Amino acid sequence: MSDPPVSAILIAIGTELSSGQVINSNSAWIAGQLSAAGLDTLLHWTVPDDRALIRQALDRAAAETELIFLTGGLGPTSDDFTRDLVAEWAAQPLEFNPSSWERIEARAAAYGFKLVESQKQQCWFPAGAEIFPNPVGTADAFALFGETTLVVLPGPPHEIKALWQSAVAARLQPMLPALPTRSLHRWQCLGIPEGSLGELVDAAVAGEAGALTGFRAHAPYIEVKLWLDSRSDADAIRSRVEAAIGQWVVLRGDEDAALRLLASLPAETPIEIDDAVTGGLLATRLREALAQLPARQAPLSLHSSWQGPSDPKQAMTWLAEAETPETLQLAIGGFESGQWGLGLRSDGQLRFELFELPYAAEREAPSERSLRYVCEMALITAWKWLHETTQINE
Amino acid sequence: MSDPPVSAILIAIGTELSSGQVINSNSAWIAGQLSAAGLDTLLHWTVPDDRALIRQALDRAAAETELIFLTGGLGPTSDDFTRDLVAEWAAQPLEFNPSSWERIEARAAAYGFKLVESQKQQCWFPAGAEIFPNPVGTADAFALFGETTLVVLPGPPHEIKALWQSAVAARLQPMLPALPTRSLHRWQCLGIPEGSLGELVDAAVAGEAGALTGFRAHAPYIEVKLWLDSRSDADAIRSRVEAAIGQWVVLRGDEDAALRLLASLPAETPIEIDDAVTGGLLATRLREALAQLPARQAPLSLHSSWQGPSDPKQAMTWLAEAETPETLQLAIGGFESGQWGLGLRSDGQLRFELFELPYAAEREAPSERSLRYVCEMALITAWKWLHETTQINE
Repeated sequence: MSDPPVSAILIAIGTELSSGQVINSNSAWIAGQLSAAGLDTLLHWTVPDDRALIRQALDRAAAETELIFLTGGLGPTSDDFTRDLVAEWAAQPLEFNPSSWERIEARAAAYGFKLVESQKQQCWFPAGAEIFPNPVGTADAFALFGETTLVVLPGPPHEIKALWQSAVAARLQPMLPALPTRSLHRWQCLGIPEGSLGELVDAAVAGEAGALTGFRAHAPYIEVKLWLDSRSDADAIRSRVEAAIGQWVVLRGDEDAALRLLASLPAETPIEIDDAVTGGLLATRLREALAQLPARQAPLSLHSSWQGPSDPKQAMTWLAEAETPETLQLAIGGFESGQWGLGLRSDGQLRFELFELPYAAEREAPSERSLRYVCEMALITAWKWLHETTQINE
Repeated sequence: MSDPPVSAILIAIGTELSSGQVINSNSAWIAGQLSAAGLDTLLHWTVPDDRALIRQALDRAAAETELIFLTGGLGPTSDDFTRDLVAEWAAQPLEFNPSSWERIEARAAAYGFKLVESQKQQCWFPAGAEIFPNPVGTADAFALFGETTLVVLPGPPHEIKALWQSAVAARLQPMLPALPTRSLHRWQCLGIPEGSLGELVDAAVAGEAGALTGFRAHAPYIEVKLWLDSRSDADAIRSRVEAAIGQWVVLRGDEDAALRLLASLPAETPIEIDDAVTGGLLATRLREALAQLPARQAPLSLHSSWQGPSDPKQAMTWLAEAETPETLQLAIGGFESGQWGLGLRSDGQLRFELFELPYAAEREAPSERSLRYVCEMALITAWKWLHETTQINE
């Protein structure tokens, strides 16, 4: 085996991507997997369903890296020709793979679908390709290993994830470098502008070799990133940064406010939420978090209303009246003149507070950013109150 | 003015994008705007915060197109150096723009933020650049017009959208080609596999010059696209395709099931929804649609619960009991053995039906795809019933 590749190039194929009809989320997902395995991604390219442009992208990528990922264009319809181009590019004939066809037939039978002849185009692969059966769709992935390794995946994001987990990751593992010794530290901050945070962090790491900082605004958070390599006194630098920004840090690393709140409750605690403010944002956040916690069995019910400005204390009526001791109850009360109310009832204790919006200019007509801020603050504060007032799992 | 550019290249800058921490949605958005204006996007590139790679991307893009968009790296922190690289690339010195600084100061005052010295880095621009004031953030955009036109935008998606609307689109308009005469027709289908749909459509357009087809699976829909240019008998071909696939078509063109339902109701009709099935998916769909219908003032309230399998007819109890004639009431009842119930009360009329899941294999443990299917079917069926039984706006 030659030296492990030092970087990868990702090519996403599809006019629906290049024309902007669909956002290319696959390249970010694959880059994230490679990054976790210690491999940098040099470039992502998105190209339309255009034979010349795809060939050009393949040629260029091969000139610059030893590991290329192609996604898209393996479907059963006439606009899917990735397999033909790859065969041409690799100067290999296409060969029919009977076991791919058997798998597609079995899948169609289980789902009660009728197969059509054109589906057979999904069963042709360049000679010498290694084939990865698709556990959740009809298009099998394949790879050509050599001086340049080319991995070809279908376009649907859930199929890529399933293929990665079932076969691709394990097959690539021996080709990847050991994880670098560089460590990454991340903090999510609320309530301070990006520029001010930048000055504090840069002052705390000034003059340190082996320390690199990064910043990212993803409303309402500002994320601080700090990479420390083996040359640096990592513990001392991290402590200095923590001391400088600690009062604004609400989450660390990959922590998610909704996941942290749900995960900190016993799995059998029912949750009831009354939300008159965030217009469904809180519902969305909790649904996405619940999908990541399949072990959570207890019911979660949400009442969410969009009724314009109302009294911040109004939702507290609901909390005060509807006492069900086994249930965690959370209320976000109205939104008026820049004030909103948050209430929590847990284990028979009720706690309520009024909060101000941080953006003075938005007190009359709160923007999406303000609603996001309220939603995250509610999740963060509820978790904090639970830590202070009741027994929870940590 | 030279000939209008025929295509654009988009370069998104940021290690958070290339490493997969954040999905690059900006390139898709800009490509969509350009596409609507008649301009194809040749390529999207995503590059890390790496000076050499960004320079290389700029040089290559300039060799291949006359119109380049750069996004990202205009922030106030030390990892933002796009403006320096562009000045180097264009061989122009950076010049301080006092009016950008005045705008940032006024913005900080309005929002109650304190400015720091490093924020001034956002006010330097390559000599000769045209500056576009940012209406919603601190980083002004800029452009260098010449043989190659380079437009440089900040990274946050909402800032790009605001800048596009306030200045960029109008400034670029004279440079763009007239819209092509090619027309695009799109249909969203439910309940038929992609391969079968592909065969029907390809048979309907077989042998026609000037007709091009495309297919896209975005669960639970399969989208059919048909491009027809001026050589084709567009009306006849479109009718043949409609006849071939009509029984599976549920939406046309850009239609969205949630938007269509909300937009078809009088703006003052309150809506109440009881949803025991989709685990918040319906809430998310309606919130996003509501955000696009700012004129809608009437309250929308949603009760959504996640309680596992239950009787499909259970939610009908709620519909039967809670009669408020002015309100549109929609209930999605439990989910058991592959059956779910949909009920609607409007203008005193109640309608209810039981439906089967289309995926036989998922009757016991419905997947995210099945929940999406139920959600879209509920929105589509409610709209259909309203058309059949009551007076609504069209």
